[in-house]
Amino acid sequence: MAKFVPPVSPLAPKTVPVLPPIDGVTLATAEAGIRYKGRTDVLAVGLAEGTTVAGVFTRSKCPSAPVDWCRANLAGGRARALVVNSGNANAFTGKKGREAVALTAKIAAKAAGCRQSEVFLASTGVIGEPLDATKYDAVLDGTFAAGKADGWLDAAKAIMTTDTFPKVATATASLGGVTVTINGMAKGAGMIAPDMATMLSFVFTDAPIDAPALQALLSKGVKTTFNTVTVDSDTSTSDTLMLFATGAAAARGAPRIAEAADRRLAGFRKALQAVLADLAEQVARDGEGARKLVHVVVKGAVSNASAFRVAKSIADSPLVKTAIAGEDANWGRVVMAVGKAGEPAERDRLSISFGDIRVAHEGERDPAYDEAAASAVMKKDVITVTADLGLGRGTARVMTCDLTKDYVAINGDYRS
Amino acid sequence: MAKFVPPVSPLAPKTVPVLPPIDGVTLATAEAGIRYKGRTDVLAVGLAEGTTVAGVFTRSKCPSAPVDWCRANLAGGRARALVVNSGNANAFTGKKGREAVALTAKIAAKAAGCRQSEVFLASTGVIGEPLDATKYDAVLDGTFAAGKADGWLDAAKAIMTTDTFPKVATATASLGGVTVTINGMAKGAGMIAPDMATMLSFVFTDAPIDAPALQALLSKGVKTTFNTVTVDSDTSTSDTLMLFATGAAAARGAPRIAEAADRRLAGFRKALQAVLADLAEQVARDGEGARKLVHVVVKGAVSNASAFRVAKSIADSPLVKTAIAGEDANWGRVVMAVGKAGEPAERDRLSISFGDIRVAHEGERDPAYDEAAASAVMKKDVITVTADLGLGRGTARVMTCDLTKDYVAINGDYRS
Repeated sequence: MAKFVPPVSPLAPKTVPVLPPIDGVTLATAEAGIRYKGRTDVLAVGLAEGTTVAGVFTRSKCPSAPVDWCRANLAGGRARALVVNSGNANAFTGKKGREAVALTAKIAAKAAGCRQSEVFLASTGVIGEPLDATKYDAVLDGTFAAGKADGWLDAAKAIMTTDTFPKVATATASLGGVTVTINGMAKGAGMIAPDMATMLSFVFTDAPIDAPALQALLSKGVKTTFNTVTVDSDTSTSDTLMLFATGAAAARGAPRIAEAADRRLAGFRKALQAVLADLAEQVARDGEGARKLVHVVVKGAVSNASAFRVAKSIADSPLVKTAIAGEDANWGRVVMAVGKAGEPAERDRLSISFGDIRVAHEGERDPAYDEAAASAVMKKDVITVTADLGLGRGTARVMTCDLTKDYVAINGDYRS
Repeated sequence: MAKFVPPVSPLAPKTVPVLPPIDGVTLATAEAGIRYKGRTDVLAVGLAEGTTVAGVFTRSKCPSAPVDWCRANLAGGRARALVVNSGNANAFTGKKGREAVALTAKIAAKAAGCRQSEVFLASTGVIGEPLDATKYDAVLDGTFAAGKADGWLDAAKAIMTTDTFPKVATATASLGGVTVTINGMAKGAGMIAPDMATMLSFVFTDAPIDAPALQALLSKGVKTTFNTVTVDSDTSTSDTLMLFATGAAAARGAPRIAEAADRRLAGFRKALQAVLADLAEQVARDGEGARKLVHVVVKGAVSNASAFRVAKSIADSPLVKTAIAGEDANWGRVVMAVGKAGEPAERDRLSISFGDIRVAHEGERDPAYDEAAASAVMKKDVITVTADLGLGRGTARVMTCDLTKDYVAINGDYRS
């Protein structure tokens, strides 16, 4: 079977922001030839002394070797180097995987002039293939020293696998009257589901924030951003989201923050949410084979948690997703997905809308339902499906994409 | 978009059994024109006086009007008529749906000469469209009287929707030295997941078994048959499996059975299991767009329940299913699906096989792994995926099919 190469997603953002430098962060990419030929596949990020770090990882019971490594190092709260490769996930590689991680960290610590406990690693790509870490020897030596303050888009490109476009986002905030910057990048297109930090994403700031506070901000931030995205309900063994704070803005007078509850963080928290939300939406927009971005909104549930489970059931339903791919306002399948979620729901109180068009109300087809108007909504690139359960005040939002033949084509011949 | 008409599943059974008559059961089909043109869309089954009945239904929180009707009538334990239509599920049709069911039951009771509480109804097809039950007036009158003891295959055809072949099965058993017969039919190809009685299936026997015992047999029987099938993880609002026992074999000396634990049921139980398993497998073989039948076997889990959840996670994973469609022995995706199930699993104890080929063992690729041998297994029509968690003695089996572009084609333009 010939490998199917998908075109750039029609849902890709029309403009890409230019990310400004962040004091204390240097970027370098390299071609290690781990799996891909003729493209960069390694990203090496140098981080200034004093950089704090936070992370959230896959909840898979079979995490990759780099995830295990990062979890262990996170306890120290300090980071000096981040090394990411694409093409090989170093997952389910057993003892060889642990050895590859240890060797990579050793090479990186030497190259960056830091302790191994300050090195963070991430890998993405095929599962189960041994990763030859000796390839890092040639590429990492001198790489950190040669790192530049710009080149964020190149960095995002180096970590892509089945992504059809690089994903970056930026925002600024005022911290004690000083402007701080947040830059982020992400990769991910398939094997994506909520309930973890989805795929690989790395966010950097010059704000001086202690590690425990940074962790609290990040753990809260993913709940309404990355954890609300599902492409195919499949959870990667490698999902990693890390937030690095160099603290360089302290030199410009930004106050050091020790507590996540500090009121001076209001603006930073909002900016961080914006960056995380932007990156998460880009992941959904690059869902494998996606032609439509779908917002699923559930209202009137008995609780927010119940609403989330119903929203996830709708967003993960292959029948709902194929109907949207077919531009078919098939609300019967939404009823089905509500019904199978196992959450409190009463048929005779349920209302369903596509965009502004309410198609079903109180247990039957809306008397005012207009098929032509509904069809017009279904032709759009971005579609909101709303289910109002009519029981309580619980609400939730989940983002997903449609399920197309290209999803099957992309995944029916990935490894071979 | 032109409607995609799939070819007959390549996994369809090569031979179809001829079902013998069952004393007390008469079959008739009709063209009511409910949705389809030029084909039968109504099945009317007459049942002799004294027929007992058992049923299991969808666990959807939004069940169809006919499911509500059957659940209510099941308490009486007696059946004289079964009316099934295809083309319209009469689901999420609110008050109109309840009225349609009431009118259908009234017409059927009059035509069959029985009480409405002895009428059972099932509908399958599009959700949310009002069902015009007045169409039954013309077709049911005289239909029960004209019913025949044969024509089981025609009966199975009348209840098909996106099925590509009719599904029937038969078996005999000895009950107190007297041969009794079990005949069954099923329909279902998509919107299929375990944890309920999948899709529509009707099973008939001449064995004299009281309703409570019949119900116990059926409820136990689905656990290892229909409830282990998943095509797309989507649960229908209409799923119905009913078992009717006319008791006519009593005239030939078969003993009347009051308790499911009665030892004389041993042979009957086995034959019933065989019929249910046969029908359930046929449903998986007709999974929408299916090219491969997939048996997922999980061993070594901490419990059978845990094994089942892991098996379901593997069987429902779009990435596992597309890999199988692509004939790719991509065991990394099986690892992913084990990991996301949320059940106890240890990467370093996990073994994964495709057919006889063990591809992964104790946390890494099996040293003896032979890609060519694995590829040969993947080319087969029927593939067994085995995950041995290496933790305990829990086992489970789930049946599914691959996920192909045809699944998307079939479901991307079903309703329009």
